[in-house]
Amino acid sequence: MINTAGRMIPDQIAGLAQVRPYAGPFATIPTGQMTGPKLRVNMPKSEKLIKSIDHVIEATGLKDGMTISFHHHFRNGDYVLNQVIEAIAKKGIKGLTLAPSSLNDINEAIIPFIEQGVITAIETSGGRAKLGKLMTSGQLAKPTIIRSHGGRARAIEAGDLKIDVTFIGAPCCDRYGNMNGINGRSACGSMGYAMVDAAYADKVVAITDNLVPHPVYPISIPQTQVDFIVVLDSIGDPKGIASGALRISRDPRELLIAEYATGVIENSGYFKDGWSLQLGSGGASLAAAKFIKEKMIAQGITASFGVGGITAPFVDMLEQGLIKTIFDVQDFDIPSIESLKNNPNHLEMSASYYANPHNGGPVVNNLDVVILSATEVDVDFNVNVITDSNGIIMGASGGHSDTAAGANLAIVVAPLLRGRLPMVLDKVNTIVTPGETVDVIVTERGIAVNPRRTDLIDNLKGTGLPVMSIHDLQKLAYDMAGKPETIAVSDEVVAVIEYRDGTIIDVVRKPL
Amino acid sequence: MINTAGRMIPDQIAGLAQVRPYAGPFATIPTGQMTGPKLRVNMPKSEKLIKSIDHVIEATGLKDGMTISFHHHFRNGDYVLNQVIEAIAKKGIKGLTLAPSSLNDINEAIIPFIEQGVITAIETSGGRAKLGKLMTSGQLAKPTIIRSHGGRARAIEAGDLKIDVTFIGAPCCDRYGNMNGINGRSACGSMGYAMVDAAYADKVVAITDNLVPHPVYPISIPQTQVDFIVVLDSIGDPKGIASGALRISRDPRELLIAEYATGVIENSGYFKDGWSLQLGSGGASLAAAKFIKEKMIAQGITASFGVGGITAPFVDMLEQGLIKTIFDVQDFDIPSIESLKNNPNHLEMSASYYANPHNGGPVVNNLDVVILSATEVDVDFNVNVITDSNGIIMGASGGHSDTAAGANLAIVVAPLLRGRLPMVLDKVNTIVTPGETVDVIVTERGIAVNPRRTDLIDNLKGTGLPVMSIHDLQKLAYDMAGKPETIAVSDEVVAVIEYRDGTIIDVVRKPL
Repeated sequence: MINTAGRMIPDQIAGLAQVRPYAGPFATIPTGQMTGPKLRVNMPKSEKLIKSIDHVIEATGLKDGMTISFHHHFRNGDYVLNQVIEAIAKKGIKGLTLAPSSLNDINEAIIPFIEQGVITAIETSGGRAKLGKLMTSGQLAKPTIIRSHGGRARAIEAGDLKIDVTFIGAPCCDRYGNMNGINGRSACGSMGYAMVDAAYADKVVAITDNLVPHPVYPISIPQTQVDFIVVLDSIGDPKGIASGALRISRDPRELLIAEYATGVIENSGYFKDGWSLQLGSGGASLAAAKFIKEKMIAQGITASFGVGGITAPFVDMLEQGLIKTIFDVQDFDIPSIESLKNNPNHLEMSASYYANPHNGGPVVNNLDVVILSATEVDVDFNVNVITDSNGIIMGASGGHSDTAAGANLAIVVAPLLRGRLPMVLDKVNTIVTPGETVDVIVTERGIAVNPRRTDLIDNLKGTGLPVMSIHDLQKLAYDMAGKPETIAVSDEVVAVIEYRDGTIIDVVRKPL
Repeated sequence: MINTAGRMIPDQIAGLAQVRPYAGPFATIPTGQMTGPKLRVNMPKSEKLIKSIDHVIEATGLKDGMTISFHHHFRNGDYVLNQVIEAIAKKGIKGLTLAPSSLNDINEAIIPFIEQGVITAIETSGGRAKLGKLMTSGQLAKPTIIRSHGGRARAIEAGDLKIDVTFIGAPCCDRYGNMNGINGRSACGSMGYAMVDAAYADKVVAITDNLVPHPVYPISIPQTQVDFIVVLDSIGDPKGIASGALRISRDPRELLIAEYATGVIENSGYFKDGWSLQLGSGGASLAAAKFIKEKMIAQGITASFGVGGITAPFVDMLEQGLIKTIFDVQDFDIPSIESLKNNPNHLEMSASYYANPHNGGPVVNNLDVVILSATEVDVDFNVNVITDSNGIIMGASGGHSDTAAGANLAIVVAPLLRGRLPMVLDKVNTIVTPGETVDVIVTERGIAVNPRRTDLIDNLKGTGLPVMSIHDLQKLAYDMAGKPETIAVSDEVVAVIEYRDGTIIDVVRKPL
């Protein structure tokens, strides 16, 4: 069948009970109730501490075929996922579905256990490098399911993604299982992705290198959700978890893209007192933060809130009173972690609060402006952030489609050429974010506004910004680099791109 | 059938799908999953504001036979419950189950609507005065179900108490539904009871007299759980919501009880650095707080946390560093509300975190000591807080049985005589808290230790405290006031006392 994004979706896909084709960003009206975790009982003063990962695996009752999850807040400093899977492998458990909120390069260490059949399916946000290649290779028993951050929260809360056991790396934890991410040498800041897993998994294991006296506070994940606690010497490498504040780009192309994006925002009609924004962590986004800040100061405008993935430039704007509140699902650098710890206007939020489309209103629905990246866009404004020009998985869905759907103004920034390849195609290899939710594409050579947004087209007239049609933008790219070859693929579906509402917006087929 | 508390429970009770007899405080091992609210969808920037209570009732789809809920944080200043029920009555809706976290005397205004059949069943914590009499009269279609605060959270989370629509009085609310209880002229402090309703009701209505710009923070109840918002001129009377700091009792009998209770705590073996406590809001409890504080200062002991129902003496101990953290499910006075607002060591908690026996560990399970009140106790240490000496409902279950079950040391304080009636009976009229969870009964004439607690009996030897057997304590009372008459009752069950785990510990029969 062909979905409304124009993609051919097989009627049946291994591992999916039902294939529901994408039908538009808000076409799915969910029915029924949210699910819940297993009912538990806890005896007063009972002991949750278990002496090792090996013992806790037994305590949870983990068995062949179950689903396990992890959070990715430790980024490339994560020691938890690899250690737990190694311990599971040693116990001879097989056929697990691995469903972390995302995977980092450091998790390549688990590839041997995938090859041994310990893990036979993956449901996550995406994968880079060797893990992306593995997902694309078809060697897993089922296609990998790629979900956005909001879509994952939805899937967990709706019971589509049932987690049997979650293993939560906890930078700060007490003996009863109250946790936060802001204290301790493995501090990662917000635990926003893990909050959903903790609330819905049947068994919740906290893994910490910083056991402190009860009660821990603030409490990001409460003791009421935690079954067991394991103490390790180290759960992460601080250098890999968070960097120092990133330097703003000096790449002239990125600076020009940032300047244009800022111009679009300034003239969009949304740049007024009380507006709200999400910025990415890429070079152009960080540069845009700087330019936007200057415009806000010059025009005396403040924002009611900022959302993200938080970085130092955002924190800087919060501290200067330019942004009144930050909603934080993840921290990328040390200044952001410190701000979450010390600034009462900097709020931790769960992935569901951030972006789940099937609750009473995620904060992405309140967004005015988001700046997003892309590996490819197409003339229908569809965006790919997941596969490269060879059709190999090399990115993650993240909050891309969530924020695009929620924000009044979704701006995609990208260089017009990537290496020698045009970025504007006839059809992107893989749709992650549908064009009907993307408003503007900004490159260093030109800006294209989605024709649906006649209001924006009007607002940008006479601003001096290089607005042109998407076809003209594509022609510019093709004139410079030629029309790229299409990727030859087999019929084998190796990954499913689940839209945030649970429908299938695209599949990744194995390249020939 | 006779349950393990020795009470005759009918095999069938109107309104209960199944009658499960109480079998011991931790005998019930729950199976299955928690439930969840209806899956929702919210369109970006959609409007949640509805212009009146009348309109919001229509928007929720409220129909005959449904269950509605409210929170009781506004205490005797509550304007929300009465107004909503009056509006419901005007629409001709009938046969509702009213399931508030508790009822206050001010809610007597709804009695006409009960008589008219708008409300035909009640599930709550208890009732006083006219509402208690009404519950005892048998004029409701089904027996009233009385639950503890933890038991109510359990029932909601397990799906036993399904709330169709909850109406939440919100002292501070933004246009998207984020709320807290600490700001605004109707500030009530913690919204701990309402949190459970908001998380599980199919439709959630916020009713506020203080609509503020988005986003409100701190966030006690998130926008993701809120469907509609109604703005009223006033949702409560500040004088009824919170009093000033209560004066410590000067009643010599209460002071003596408090002194003895303090002596029991001091010598119990639990009075050491890092201990934890919950105190009630009655006269003897507040006086005990003062004496305990003096002992803590004298002996250089600090508590890791305090729990409650929070009052000014607790806040005073927090501010002096004698208690390191407060977990707050409800505030009784203005100093407590101010402390929740301003002191980061003063934490709001939900009723589930407080006391739900079927999660991964409510904070009552961490308690060392709780001081509780009683209207009657018996020689088996069972406690009644719900019916008076005529068998009429005149109190509420509250957190009584929850904290007694969770704490290491549950002390019940009460005068030996109440008016001219002995407080220690052969059998209490109504069991709310089973004797196997009660450790010590303290009166102004003597102290009885539960014979199960041989450790406590040993610890209290040689302390000079007037420890005696419960039978000697009863004899003292009977010698002064004679043996009380038993209450003659009919076979008609007018209320069910549900133990926190969902079993039936007792029923209230209509007095003859």
